[in-house]
Amino acid sequence: MQHSKNIAVVGSGLVGSLLALHFTKAGHRVTVFDRRPDVRTVEFSGRSINLAMSNRGWKALREAGIEEEIRKLAIPLYQRAMHVNSSPVYFQKYGKEGEAIYSISRGVLNRKMIDLAETAGVEFRFEEKVWDVDLSEAKLFTGESEKGEWQEYDFDLIFGADGAFSRVRHKMQRQSRFNYSQDFIDVGYKELRIPANADGSHKLDKNSFHIWPRGKFMLIAMPNLDGSFTCTLFLPFEGEHSFENLTTEKEAENFFSRYFPDIKDEISNLTRDFFRNPTSALVTVKCFPWTYNDKIALVGDAAHAIVPFYGQGMNAGFEDISELSRLESEYGDDWESIFREYQNLRKPNADAIAELSYRNFLEMSSKTADPDFLLRKKIEKHFASKHPEKWKPVYSRVTFSEKPYSEALQIGDQQAAIMDVIMKLPDISEKWDSEEVEQKILAMLE
Amino acid sequence: MQHSKNIAVVGSGLVGSLLALHFTKAGHRVTVFDRRPDVRTVEFSGRSINLAMSNRGWKALREAGIEEEIRKLAIPLYQRAMHVNSSPVYFQKYGKEGEAIYSISRGVLNRKMIDLAETAGVEFRFEEKVWDVDLSEAKLFTGESEKGEWQEYDFDLIFGADGAFSRVRHKMQRQSRFNYSQDFIDVGYKELRIPANADGSHKLDKNSFHIWPRGKFMLIAMPNLDGSFTCTLFLPFEGEHSFENLTTEKEAENFFSRYFPDIKDEISNLTRDFFRNPTSALVTVKCFPWTYNDKIALVGDAAHAIVPFYGQGMNAGFEDISELSRLESEYGDDWESIFREYQNLRKPNADAIAELSYRNFLEMSSKTADPDFLLRKKIEKHFASKHPEKWKPVYSRVTFSEKPYSEALQIGDQQAAIMDVIMKLPDISEKWDSEEVEQKILAMLE
Repeated sequence: MQHSKNIAVVGSGLVGSLLALHFTKAGHRVTVFDRRPDVRTVEFSGRSINLAMSNRGWKALREAGIEEEIRKLAIPLYQRAMHVNSSPVYFQKYGKEGEAIYSISRGVLNRKMIDLAETAGVEFRFEEKVWDVDLSEAKLFTGESEKGEWQEYDFDLIFGADGAFSRVRHKMQRQSRFNYSQDFIDVGYKELRIPANADGSHKLDKNSFHIWPRGKFMLIAMPNLDGSFTCTLFLPFEGEHSFENLTTEKEAENFFSRYFPDIKDEISNLTRDFFRNPTSALVTVKCFPWTYNDKIALVGDAAHAIVPFYGQGMNAGFEDISELSRLESEYGDDWESIFREYQNLRKPNADAIAELSYRNFLEMSSKTADPDFLLRKKIEKHFASKHPEKWKPVYSRVTFSEKPYSEALQIGDQQAAIMDVIMKLPDISEKWDSEEVEQKILAMLE
Repeated sequence: MQHSKNIAVVGSGLVGSLLALHFTKAGHRVTVFDRRPDVRTVEFSGRSINLAMSNRGWKALREAGIEEEIRKLAIPLYQRAMHVNSSPVYFQKYGKEGEAIYSISRGVLNRKMIDLAETAGVEFRFEEKVWDVDLSEAKLFTGESEKGEWQEYDFDLIFGADGAFSRVRHKMQRQSRFNYSQDFIDVGYKELRIPANADGSHKLDKNSFHIWPRGKFMLIAMPNLDGSFTCTLFLPFEGEHSFENLTTEKEAENFFSRYFPDIKDEISNLTRDFFRNPTSALVTVKCFPWTYNDKIALVGDAAHAIVPFYGQGMNAGFEDISELSRLESEYGDDWESIFREYQNLRKPNADAIAELSYRNFLEMSSKTADPDFLLRKKIEKHFASKHPEKWKPVYSRVTFSEKPYSEALQIGDQQAAIMDVIMKLPDISEKWDSEEVEQKILAMLE
């Protein structure tokens, strides 16, 4: 049994609002600080990538008692729809019958979660900027500007859920022996939009994750409840095909005509939005430790921001909350043990999903057109369909399971080592579905 | 030909003072800011590791016209003196006849360099704290405290030579797409001291770098001009043998008696200094970019702090200055090109020496007692002595050469791959100096 604590959560994003709801329901008093205005009162930013909620995310929502509420905002995606020029669209199932990831608009979800947290009793302080944190005393200092007057707040515990550029982490980073890295990839992204048909229906299959893979760049589209799709263009910042080289409406127009002819005319206000919406960068952030004594902890992107190519950023953040919740049941009021176990258990999993997400970026950007890679995937799929109990794909382990990410990475590496051997067999492209290959894989799996 | 610029250097350490001297001699106006007091007016900190000046460092000093002055402060070390318990001290030559690294007291050197820079016309502003940098306008803001009144300075160029925890870099890090990492190793260090004999002579051979390797920890000693030695104990922060476990004078005493019996009694005020001197951490810092337009550049540890196990930290920083100097001759007033080339040329070399230094740490902490490792080194040495033109050790490439660090790393990796094969030969420990092994290495080198 825990005693009620006075808790601050910095950041009112998805992880911050779920964490606040969780603590309030557990009987603590919770105040959420956010330097930005209430997302319920402002237009969406035009820089969000739609979310793909999968098993880990749903688990945390279930534990917080809001799964059903959130299900109403979600559209199941059972498959990828691959849009390759000059071929018909083809579909790739994500998992077994009924397995799906769920498209949710980030803004819609965030508004709902803040509503739910507020109803449960969380106090939200929007447009209040945290400038400093006293780590050992769990004090927050807020104010209009970094150099102006500050207000001081005392808490028992402070959680930094303030994202990839976390102010709370920034303060922890000043300590000696704090490991930290931020690595940007050379690809940026831009949000675009495909509106609904006049009758409110979707212009593309609404139960698919739509991808237009083009080697070094790609477009994706995910459905919203209102019939629209949120599109994201991933494109290098510099180089032949790049944001740098698309500086006029004419250039943007030509680029879409050439590479996305089947969808270009459906994107609303293409050239206006292309130049009005920001071009955003993608970063992997790693750090350690994640906690300070029994006072401070980082959660979600503040502890482990990842690139979005596995659709696991929010799911990983929500899983932090599941783990904290489980440890609270185990350790009660012993927050020092809760925090120690939390960071030691979560860190390897955060590193694993960071690695898997980065590999998916490399795979998408350089391998989707590689015949060897496609053959490899075909062999794996063929074998997995014959021996589902022996070969569960990494994607399913990450997406449709609650087993640790680190286990998925490790088994994935074992599978890759086996496939390296298989791909070197003479005439593998002829005999890829042969008994010989099947037996060889089985032997190596022993 | 360059026009005279108004240049700020942040940091009056070794790299900052040499950079300031260099620019002043090149006809620029230079102001150096340092948040600390003038090192010439204060006692040394008790947290310095003595320096090993090698070829790259001497080259930069030569270019600045102060090599001869600095030679007077240096003691050549021709060899390692290995102190292994229950064996006599044995010696390992660093290089060929006459090749040496040079021991210099960091404090003595820094005082001298500031003197030389000041005499040449550099303005030093000590105890003036830089709090903010306007990157695009090359402005510095200084003041008593971060929240107090600030003074604004305008420059043409600003150089951040303010070390591993650089304030200038800190400001650059706030930009999007700035890659950054800081990684602490789990070993810390503490400075100790062996005083001179009563007659002013050294208590140990003064032309050796003394090492007491003990697996996970070690003691080193480097000579000073006054007959003393500066010792550094490298020891894990936590674990069986660790700073954490040496908390009383008795424990420290026992630790030294057990592991360093031959030198314990020569260390002055051992237990007093052990608890009075700070325990310091060791960090590798990497970042990119190193420059901002034609206004700002990072130099030395601010751009690339490394662990000290290759003795190259200062040498690498001085080599930055050599490279800048070369690029100024090439590009004249075109600072945008100078800065672009500077970071593109230096970054791979900084990464290479970081990697080599970290590997040396791993080697020292885990491999010095490994018989396979010792055999490997013996084979390499034997082969190198027979074929000096074909097998130049990585240590010599780093220390006694001015060729790029990245080349040393690459050739070192090739040598390691060859040795991996050699070490797998059956009965290698019997036939390590055989004709067969020699021929095999020669064949692989083709």
